[in-house]
Amino acid sequence: MAGKKVLIVYAHQELRSLNGSLKKVAEDELGKQGCIVTVSDLYAMDFEPRATRNDITASSSPGALSNPKLFNYGVEAYEAYKKRSLTSDIVDEQKKVQEADLVIFQFPLYWFSVPAILKGWMDRVLCQGFAFDFPEFYDSGFLKDKLALLSITTGSTAEMYTKTGVSGDFRYLLWPLQHGTLHFCGFKVLDPQISFAPEFASEEERKGMVVSWAQRLKNIWKEEPIPCTPPWYFGQ
Amino acid sequence: MAGKKVLIVYAHQELRSLNGSLKKVAEDELGKQGCIVTVSDLYAMDFEPRATRNDITASSSPGALSNPKLFNYGVEAYEAYKKRSLTSDIVDEQKKVQEADLVIFQFPLYWFSVPAILKGWMDRVLCQGFAFDFPEFYDSGFLKDKLALLSITTGSTAEMYTKTGVSGDFRYLLWPLQHGTLHFCGFKVLDPQISFAPEFASEEERKGMVVSWAQRLKNIWKEEPIPCTPPWYFGQ
Repeated sequence: MAGKKVLIVYAHQELRSLNGSLKKVAEDELGKQGCIVTVSDLYAMDFEPRATRNDITASSSPGALSNPKLFNYGVEAYEAYKKRSLTSDIVDEQKKVQEADLVIFQFPLYWFSVPAILKGWMDRVLCQGFAFDFPEFYDSGFLKDKLALLSITTGSTAEMYTKTGVSGDFRYLLWPLQHGTLHFCGFKVLDPQISFAPEFASEEERKGMVVSWAQRLKNIWKEEPIPCTPPWYFGQ
Repeated sequence: MAGKKVLIVYAHQELRSLNGSLKKVAEDELGKQGCIVTVSDLYAMDFEPRATRNDITASSSPGALSNPKLFNYGVEAYEAYKKRSLTSDIVDEQKKVQEADLVIFQFPLYWFSVPAILKGWMDRVLCQGFAFDFPEFYDSGFLKDKLALLSITTGSTAEMYTKTGVSGDFRYLLWPLQHGTLHFCGFKVLDPQISFAPEFASEEERKGMVVSWAQRLKNIWKEEPIPCTPPWYFGQ
């Protein structure tokens, strides 16, 4: 939809991968619609995943930390956010999120979750004060006017991710990401886009995965968010 | 139990934190039992969380990568494991895991999961060939003769983590870690040790959390693993 802003947070090492193709086709399709698309290519940026003292700059003298003798990352990041003394890589990402109407996370599933580089983006960028506060969380989270969508490629086949399969229903593993992270910050979560087992797929099937993602994006602005409740994730 | 080997993978920035105290008391108590305890202090090691080409060394010439034109981390790490050309920081951790009878993960909950630095340890250390292969996964995983235990501190109170609480039953969020990661590699998983909301607790209550962890460790070798099935995690 013309004028809408989209941030793609992309976590794959190889642009020629299926993840790279899914990112590219999203840029193209959303661009055609007149959307303004920004990409954070985390590996290309060598994005820092570790949450450390380095995230709080010394710009706010005297002394950057509120309690240097007992370092508490969450507390210090919250204080630094309010004092505008977070490092610039975090501030840059927060600006991109702030401007976005939709954030798409494009990544391969690593251990039923996001790769560490993307976990680090979540740990560091979505800090208290910026993404949530107390009691501004879940439906009242600060990012409540935004949409979020996980676009995931998997190593295992769809058959393994069923209620009776060895890896359980796919929704089970989405809970910490979609509910515990995105919904906690207020995001309205759209259905995930799951491209199963591209390594076992033919070239034609892989092309089909890219095409179906592009097709879906044509009507993405009409989609309703999922009901982010335990029955949706775990109900019979 | 005398002679048993324990690896503690510790992911907190501050030794004077509750996480630091829980790590310390585990070292002390297990040491008293005659166990040989090794600690991987991830922040102190500045452990690399990002899974990149750098993990495959050039020692196996000609050319370290099996397909440099289309980089696939999982495939390359598997090949490098077999050719013994993974970087030394990964090899060092794999040796520690290989020798351990019990691996304890000590960390604060970040976004319903492990901090990115610990996610990176899982992404990089537990590679195919070392921790699992196909069809050697879940009950047949290569680490099937070992125990694993998550010792977690939380920001939220226990009341928020109930079936009817806003964050759902705590077991829901353990699924990707305990089943999707540890069980996938074959680990027998012991009940998690959860220290709820130390930031809202009194000094006395925090000391109680440390004492109860030490008490539990006295009989840790007699514990039975959890039944790692969907009904245990999601059943009514």
